[in-house]
Amino acid sequence: MHRFQYVGKQLYCEETPVAKIAQRVGTPFYLYSIGTFLDHYFKLRDAFKPVDPLICFSMKANSNLTVLKALVENGAGLDIVSGGELFRAKRVGVDPRKVVFASVGKTPEEIEEAIRAKILMFNVESAQELEAINAVAGRLRTTQRIAIRLNPDVAADTHHYITTGRKENKFGIHLKTAYQLFMESYRYPFLRFAGVHIHIGSQITEAKPFIEAVRRCLEFIDGVRYAGKTTVEYLNIGGGLGIIYSKEKPQTAQQFADAILPLLKGYENRLRLVLEPGRFISGNSGILVTKVLYKKKGQNKKSFVIVDAGMNDLIRPAFYGAYHEILPVLRHVRSKVEKADVVGPICESGDFLAKDRRFPAAEPGQLLAVMSCGAYGFVMSSNYNSRPRVPEVVVSGRKFYVARQRETRNDLIRNEKIVREVLS
Amino acid sequence: MHRFQYVGKQLYCEETPVAKIAQRVGTPFYLYSIGTFLDHYFKLRDAFKPVDPLICFSMKANSNLTVLKALVENGAGLDIVSGGELFRAKRVGVDPRKVVFASVGKTPEEIEEAIRAKILMFNVESAQELEAINAVAGRLRTTQRIAIRLNPDVAADTHHYITTGRKENKFGIHLKTAYQLFMESYRYPFLRFAGVHIHIGSQITEAKPFIEAVRRCLEFIDGVRYAGKTTVEYLNIGGGLGIIYSKEKPQTAQQFADAILPLLKGYENRLRLVLEPGRFISGNSGILVTKVLYKKKGQNKKSFVIVDAGMNDLIRPAFYGAYHEILPVLRHVRSKVEKADVVGPICESGDFLAKDRRFPAAEPGQLLAVMSCGAYGFVMSSNYNSRPRVPEVVVSGRKFYVARQRETRNDLIRNEKIVREVLS
Repeated sequence: MHRFQYVGKQLYCEETPVAKIAQRVGTPFYLYSIGTFLDHYFKLRDAFKPVDPLICFSMKANSNLTVLKALVENGAGLDIVSGGELFRAKRVGVDPRKVVFASVGKTPEEIEEAIRAKILMFNVESAQELEAINAVAGRLRTTQRIAIRLNPDVAADTHHYITTGRKENKFGIHLKTAYQLFMESYRYPFLRFAGVHIHIGSQITEAKPFIEAVRRCLEFIDGVRYAGKTTVEYLNIGGGLGIIYSKEKPQTAQQFADAILPLLKGYENRLRLVLEPGRFISGNSGILVTKVLYKKKGQNKKSFVIVDAGMNDLIRPAFYGAYHEILPVLRHVRSKVEKADVVGPICESGDFLAKDRRFPAAEPGQLLAVMSCGAYGFVMSSNYNSRPRVPEVVVSGRKFYVARQRETRNDLIRNEKIVREVLS
Repeated sequence: MHRFQYVGKQLYCEETPVAKIAQRVGTPFYLYSIGTFLDHYFKLRDAFKPVDPLICFSMKANSNLTVLKALVENGAGLDIVSGGELFRAKRVGVDPRKVVFASVGKTPEEIEEAIRAKILMFNVESAQELEAINAVAGRLRTTQRIAIRLNPDVAADTHHYITTGRKENKFGIHLKTAYQLFMESYRYPFLRFAGVHIHIGSQITEAKPFIEAVRRCLEFIDGVRYAGKTTVEYLNIGGGLGIIYSKEKPQTAQQFADAILPLLKGYENRLRLVLEPGRFISGNSGILVTKVLYKKKGQNKKSFVIVDAGMNDLIRPAFYGAYHEILPVLRHVRSKVEKADVVGPICESGDFLAKDRRFPAAEPGQLLAVMSCGAYGFVMSSNYNSRPRVPEVVVSGRKFYVARQRETRNDLIRNEKIVREVLS
């Protein structure tokens, strides 16, 4: 699954002891195993090999330049959601024909930048957005490929903040409206209605909702084809593949491909499959390393283990109620197991990494690894409580490198000044 | 209450039209009324005038340097929670004898910095922290004032993430344990047990829990005094005063003082009162200005109004379920009222600013003001989805100034590099 393993008492990332890195860079820090990112990417690529899909890594999950570069060098495309992500994508030299742009709120400036960059396709979320892209493409005297994001109204069993394929969500266009748009594609002379897109949610562990959604897409594509108005060339089935955080038993890449590929029989020659995996590739590929500062007895024999990483560094437990396994970086086989909340230094009760967790008694100075932090970890971090953001360290085999430096205090106030004119 | 008011159809901040600022700095941006910050500070100061309290603005709510400077110039102290906040506090030249340092996770480095800066007091959260501060103070050959943060086990009716005075929270020390610590204060030769601190939560609108908590504190102080071990000189009753977001009817500063001051009869000459207001001073003093990008019909006659500010800019609605009033910057008296979700461009269902809100039909290009964003707004913002953070603009009367510039794309990758050594 991933390359964070104990060798004796020591937790290793690939062939590098985590404790050694902590000693050099200090805590807290994010630690990425480049090998694990690539493993997951290759698994998906290999499973879908029969149809040679375009795999666009959903970089909102992890946009570290070194991580992106490693994936892109190995053939991956990128799924972007903003002008800022386009900027990063360009930095790592991705082939623009492997870039798809999703977002319900693309600004005219972002649209123009993406058209100029010659990206493959926009995933379009509303009729007004079609008009906006058409207008910009017209102004730039070009024709732009777009995919319509369908809202298939499929229920996926996941956190309500990350289910995106229900009719009550802001995402996608209802099938009837979407059909109408395809029928009236002549109204958008600078657009090519080239694809159909779905993304039904995140951290989905079973194949069923995907199968249902793909079936609805194919029916839709057949309908559009039957009407003879346009030819759909791309079927983008989004991301959302679940990973193991705790006791989940998610489908493997192979199981997923085995469920999806049969549905595509007969479409192989006229429909290119696009995948947008984010968490599947990155989730288990990173950890957050933190140090115990204090231990405090609470009521009911429960302890609070206070660590130096807070919700500003990793917001998932507080924001999504997410579970992250926590392991000692140095394992003491005989240490007593006790019940504790692992909490950060932030002045909020929501600042926790784990609640009521039974694990080996942690003492001040000890290092802990918060597992499965490669997706939606660093990218969601903030300077809340004026805390500089932590470094991102990458490992490849026996070597580690700081890919993003720890912020300094001067970074906190970089764009700020004291406006003396308002002082009386 | 605050200085964001309509003059005719136009929303003004003090005497400056909001639309004019938007035209200059673009959207989204935070907009602060310096006058409103000061109004609230003065209200509290005046209400408690009989006991001349030390008012330490809780800068985790809003740490903008210009805002801090304006308060500090008018006599306020600062409540800090990290070394980063100490850094900002020094920048605005606050008198260190008006600085208190709270946090469950102070690192040894932060403790040393704060002692060297000669701050007034640490609010101490655990026995281990006492030892840590004692050790650093000893090494620096000085005596440091500390307050013990009591956990009074008082229930305050607020969001479970911001209630902090219950026994199940990570905050404070239980009364019995705290008494023991005071009795054994001789064990910490480099500390002066100078104060008692409580902070029972945030956004509390009624006086009752405060009264109860202060009573328990005073009983505690009497007990300690009776034992004759030490003299408590400071009673720090924290922050937590609620403000109006929607239909709340919070106590005024005067009502709060009227409830608290009688309890302090007889203690005036030996106990200095400390207050740590954050939201009370800053909450209604700022707004977030955003622009409508698209409008999309959803099911059940509901619309989605897609704006250019997302949960990375303001996380309170998604994180706390917080209500923020949303007003048009230009009011069209006869525009139709409709039901809508106001959502951002971020690719998550959690990215909303308002749900099922009835308000004047908003069209693309229109400016909206998200009210009461002066506390826990910008400070919690992130670069999620690779979105540069927005500017902070301050207004004083007829003039506005950019106190913090909009981040550029280069800011996004400032501390990053592509580590080529990990590429195969």
